[in-house]
Amino acid sequence: MSLNTFGHLFRVTTWGESHGPAIGCTVDGCPPGVLLTESDIQPWLDKRKPGQNKFTTQRKEPDEVRILSGVFEGRTTGTAIQLMIENTDQRSKDYGDIAQAFRPGHADITYHQKYGHRDYRGGGRSSARETAARVAAGGIARAAFAALMPGLRITGYMVQMGPRAIDRSRVDLSTVDSNPFWCPDPVAAVDWATYLDELRLSHNSVGAVIEVIAEGVPPGLGAPIYGKLDSDLAAAMMSINAVKAVEIGDGMAAATLTGVDNADEIRMGANGPEFLSNHAGGILGGISTGQPVICRFAVKPTSSILTPRQTINQRGQEIDLITKGRHDPCVGIRAVPVGEAMMACVLLDHLLLDRGQTGGVRGVLG
Amino acid sequence: MSLNTFGHLFRVTTWGESHGPAIGCTVDGCPPGVLLTESDIQPWLDKRKPGQNKFTTQRKEPDEVRILSGVFEGRTTGTAIQLMIENTDQRSKDYGDIAQAFRPGHADITYHQKYGHRDYRGGGRSSARETAARVAAGGIARAAFAALMPGLRITGYMVQMGPRAIDRSRVDLSTVDSNPFWCPDPVAAVDWATYLDELRLSHNSVGAVIEVIAEGVPPGLGAPIYGKLDSDLAAAMMSINAVKAVEIGDGMAAATLTGVDNADEIRMGANGPEFLSNHAGGILGGISTGQPVICRFAVKPTSSILTPRQTINQRGQEIDLITKGRHDPCVGIRAVPVGEAMMACVLLDHLLLDRGQTGGVRGVLG
Amino acid sequence: MSLNTFGHLFRVTTWGESHGPAIGCTVDGCPPGVLLTESDIQPWLDKRKPGQNKFTTQRKEPDEVRILSGVFEGRTTGTAIQLMIENTDQRSKDYGDIAQAFRPGHADITYHQKYGHRDYRGGGRSSARETAARVAAGGIARAAFAALMPGLRITGYMVQMGPRAIDRSRVDLSTVDSNPFWCPDPVAAVDWATYLDELRLSHNSVGAVIEVIAEGVPPGLGAPIYGKLDSDLAAAMMSINAVKAVEIGDGMAAATLTGVDNADEIRMGANGPEFLSNHAGGILGGISTGQPVICRFAVKPTSSILTPRQTINQRGQEIDLITKGRHDPCVGIRAVPVGEAMMACVLLDHLLLDRGQTGGVRGVLG
Amino acid sequence: MSLNTFGHLFRVTTWGESHGPAIGCTVDGCPPGVLLTESDIQPWLDKRKPGQNKFTTQRKEPDEVRILSGVFEGRTTGTAIQLMIENTDQRSKDYGDIAQAFRPGHADITYHQKYGHRDYRGGGRSSARETAARVAAGGIARAAFAALMPGLRITGYMVQMGPRAIDRSRVDLSTVDSNPFWCPDPVAAVDWATYLDELRLSHNSVGAVIEVIAEGVPPGLGAPIYGKLDSDLAAAMMSINAVKAVEIGDGMAAATLTGVDNADEIRMGANGPEFLSNHAGGILGGISTGQPVICRFAVKPTSSILTPRQTINQRGQEIDLITKGRHDPCVGIRAVPVGEAMMACVLLDHLLLDRGQTGGVRGVLG
Repeated sequence: MSLNTFGHLFRVTTWGESHGPAIGCTVDGCPPGVLLTESDIQPWLDKRKPGQNKFTTQRKEPDEVRILSGVFEGRTTGTAIQLMIENTDQRSKDYGDIAQAFRPGHADITYHQKYGHRDYRGGGRSSARETAARVAAGGIARAAFAALMPGLRITGYMVQMGPRAIDRSRVDLSTVDSNPFWCPDPVAAVDWATYLDELRLSHNSVGAVIEVIAEGVPPGLGAPIYGKLDSDLAAAMMSINAVKAVEIGDGMAAATLTGVDNADEIRMGANGPEFLSNHAGGILGGISTGQPVICRFAVKPTSSILTPRQTINQRGQEIDLITKGRHDPCVGIRAVPVGEAMMACVLLDHLLLDRGQTGGVRGVLG
Repeated sequence: MSLNTFGHLFRVTTWGESHGPAIGCTVDGCPPGVLLTESDIQPWLDKRKPGQNKFTTQRKEPDEVRILSGVFEGRTTGTAIQLMIENTDQRSKDYGDIAQAFRPGHADITYHQKYGHRDYRGGGRSSARETAARVAAGGIARAAFAALMPGLRITGYMVQMGPRAIDRSRVDLSTVDSNPFWCPDPVAAVDWATYLDELRLSHNSVGAVIEVIAEGVPPGLGAPIYGKLDSDLAAAMMSINAVKAVEIGDGMAAATLTGVDNADEIRMGANGPEFLSNHAGGILGGISTGQPVICRFAVKPTSSILTPRQTINQRGQEIDLITKGRHDPCVGIRAVPVGEAMMACVLLDHLLLDRGQTGGVRGVLG
Repeated sequence: MSLNTFGHLFRVTTWGESHGPAIGCTVDGCPPGVLLTESDIQPWLDKRKPGQNKFTTQRKEPDEVRILSGVFEGRTTGTAIQLMIENTDQRSKDYGDIAQAFRPGHADITYHQKYGHRDYRGGGRSSARETAARVAAGGIARAAFAALMPGLRITGYMVQMGPRAIDRSRVDLSTVDSNPFWCPDPVAAVDWATYLDELRLSHNSVGAVIEVIAEGVPPGLGAPIYGKLDSDLAAAMMSINAVKAVEIGDGMAAATLTGVDNADEIRMGANGPEFLSNHAGGILGGISTGQPVICRFAVKPTSSILTPRQTINQRGQEIDLITKGRHDPCVGIRAVPVGEAMMACVLLDHLLLDRGQTGGVRGVLG
Repeated sequence: MSLNTFGHLFRVTTWGESHGPAIGCTVDGCPPGVLLTESDIQPWLDKRKPGQNKFTTQRKEPDEVRILSGVFEGRTTGTAIQLMIENTDQRSKDYGDIAQAFRPGHADITYHQKYGHRDYRGGGRSSARETAARVAAGGIARAAFAALMPGLRITGYMVQMGPRAIDRSRVDLSTVDSNPFWCPDPVAAVDWATYLDELRLSHNSVGAVIEVIAEGVPPGLGAPIYGKLDSDLAAAMMSINAVKAVEIGDGMAAATLTGVDNADEIRMGANGPEFLSNHAGGILGGISTGQPVICRFAVKPTSSILTPRQTINQRGQEIDLITKGRHDPCVGIRAVPVGEAMMACVLLDHLLLDRGQTGGVRGVLG
């Protein structure tokens, strides 16, 4: 991944600052002939949109996407696809105080140190606004999947809000869309609503753990050694704002297991190999096994809170900073569609890369 | 990261199978004029070498590196540097049984599915033998640092063996080299010796968590959005054999914190900004803050154990497999120098990239 | 160069079809702090604009550029810069006949064969309209040069129209802007006007040879072996529509020289090495010498002419095709600013790359 | 193309200095299952080998290649393939005089200026010795073609020695291997033998023009806009030592044609489109048409000649330099197999890239 572009063959370049005229992305490498209109992309942006309920931020962002190139008569041409989303409803005056101050936990200070000159409004390029462009690109990836890998299904959900985890025995993925938290555990969803209310009223925020599962992934995707599928997923999720950890399969817990417990044993099924468990999270040696690919990432809490924080400003003066304006008490909620989009983009990228590398050669069992 | 190459400007391409004639790497982009001989690289390979004590594998691998290009009269020329390490002491007959079988938890099955034809001996290209080439490349990165960033210090150590974690209050980094586990907690080191003896005698294996800390990193390294320093570290560590998770700073624990507790507050010191804590692990918005960069990764247990495992072979037959031969009861131990090497390569890469992007422009505070 | 992006560190991604809503580019890697507004870019687009005189096409294309990101308060932030130019004045009905036909000499047939589905209007993505986006990117490169390499001067001009070459003994670069052909030979300019009138009236077209000279290039730019400055220039110029050859220095004529005549001898001047000639065109071993960099490229004639041509259509039927509409009798004229823009982008890219590779280390003479 | 690697999916990284222990390359992205042994590569190196006749240099270089990775039981595994050729027969003392001097027309001065420290022996990394590694990589590409594109045939030949061109009406490609110049015109071959004898005896050298034709190229290869097939060929050929120009099809002559004469008209044949001519050289809009791909490049004369030349040395002193040692009176002869190898690598790369981009989607005619 490099600078403002990620991907090997399905390459996404995002651009745009939080308070600039617009944000967008160029998607290069989408195969030709894919059915694509704005209506294939807009729902994913709507899923990410704030203001849907009292738990997310109250900024109104229509996030209406336009396709400016790469599509003709409703199908992709194989040329670069440009998507644009105009920015509306930024309240620049909300950020006036921080023009010179560095909000703790944010990238303000590092952008200043690296670039010397930054658009501070709303965090500029470092804002999570950029993730809207990723979600739009994910919409294109999904449209391509409908043609190239119809069995693929990608689902994201929260497995932990702050210290409060779901109970995996109660998981029902069909309930994910029924609550404001993308929570697959109906009991936890109720508990989280109360918890978040408490935090919001106390002007605080909380972190989260998001899990994304991809089912129907064919075996053989991934380009060892340094284009491993899990490496690319790790980079993709870590690049999302506020992410501090990425796990595949058992993740950190894999360290606590012994060899007897960890390896997924294999039997022969009617349609090919069957694994008796999925500690590996669907990836071995950086290549997909055919099992569900399971990726998890941790999002730190919002740092823009109303509690005063000690910091400095651009003049080197020590100040106490309160960040007014509207903010997410749990940014993790909005990261769910972003994680799904990254999974979609990375998987499509690897489908195309595998075609280019092996031409679909598959090892035979028999 | 792509295929067999990683890095933006300091680019490392590794090659070689476990039982081939040799392994090696091409390092492209090392600045010219850096003092470099084999003696600058060999110690890091020796650190990784098995057979040093009863806890690591008993394979004897001298791992002697040769520099074949890119150096003249003891200094780098700025051209591609080729390193080669000849393979000795492979016992091919140890792997005869598995020519047709897929060891659970290993990449055998996925390599077969993706490529159709694989060098199965010792795991071929999927073997951790490849990490010797990375460690050699890390030696070059360190030589470059001696010239370009003299204050940089990189230290790797184990913080957890299986379920047994160190006590952070007892950490003394100066003791890391005094025990076979790179353990910075003298009490835990003693406990782990006993624990590992038990596992080895019971023919089992255990996972581990490795932490790598880089001190003296200047602020401003990292190329947002998709060349973020933490993204590249995540990809780098996840690409190491058997790694299933990567953390930066507080990692997964960041999810459990509230906003009040998470953000690192800032004061103005004599030499610039001073952070009052380091939850961020030295990276904000994908750019280094000047604080120590802290990265952690989880290694799953060795899957090649003497306990019989259910699996299938290349003919699609169900079999029970015992993997004979010599193996690591805790591969995590050997991953410590590998993690250090990846940290070194990624940091040098970003030092060069930052020079290319900004020319060393730095934001002024005052 | 890859797909829709070129450049190593100064990376330009263009997008947009001739008859789509807009065209544009993302420029990634421009250093921060560079003064930049639309008025720094617009003049270069105006230079390229058709309809300026009777010799170029009569399409009216305002080509008004907007900066949508990457600039704040008049200076670049080091983040991705998005430029957009809305398309106006396409006469889609001019291309109705060719919806199904493949114009000889154009990319219609190859786009159909490769992609299966193409935007045929005005040539879609294969249209020279795309070059407006390059010229805009070149405007950014020039703005960066004003800060980073103030002595650099890039000048493009035609040295041959069809078979009619300039007389090099009459060359005066200051006259390049005084005629519609960017011709540096006042006598040839007059001759060419008559010649082109004849061709236009006979519904034909002619090719051209363009030369671009860059003066004030520091020595040391270029990244051998495969990032050589002349390799990147060759790829850059060859990527321009209708180009069939690229030369550096003496070009094809270098083959006819003997060793005694070809090599540029060197003396020591007050300010460093002085070359007694410049057969090399400013590049040796893929690295700039400090001499003017001289690059030439040949543009084939417009294939969209009013003379009937034998071809086939998408149904496989043989037809005779007349391409109506408005066309350039000599596309070479418009390629001059494009060649300049490519030279600017490639040189800036190599300035940044050299900083990243060597940190400005320069060999000392003395 | 970048630094020491070229290619998008079939990626070749070369390494090695003229007088270092060895040279070689890593080939990454060769599909798995390709039959490959040293005997598939060695003949192409032998073709390039000097000392075969009195016209090429008298250095004895066995150029024996070894495959060190990426192949198992005679077939590629899809992992990185390492090739190595040990250097023998360098006469370092031949270059002693020039340790401090910069040979005019060579890269000595630019390498010194860029890197500050260079291996001067035999030109170090700038030596044409590097091309042996390319030819070896070309051998792998050809082995892959035997499996993937069996009808492909690549032939290189000289069309001009100094000012003396072949007569195209006498061309017979079957005679190319029958003379020391890869000349397809038997009459010119005799003339050139005499001509070169004269030059050699007068201690001079001459340039050349090489043409490479690829027949049996399927339509649809090339990745517009910046991965155009002709752009990649231009970069590839320009990267060869001593090349100063690259042409596709009619090349520079395309500029002199009118639109009526230039475009290749199309009729419908039994097996698909048939072009009535090939001015385009097999490429339109950067994509192959199915016609033979024709690429030409100009090689400047050897600059290392026995005639004294004015130059300076590393101390800044003006000197007259005679380059002793053994040299090619016409380096163009040895560039023929190199041009063929670059054509092979670029075409295979684009075959793989096209598979990754479009999955073999082809536009239908009918």
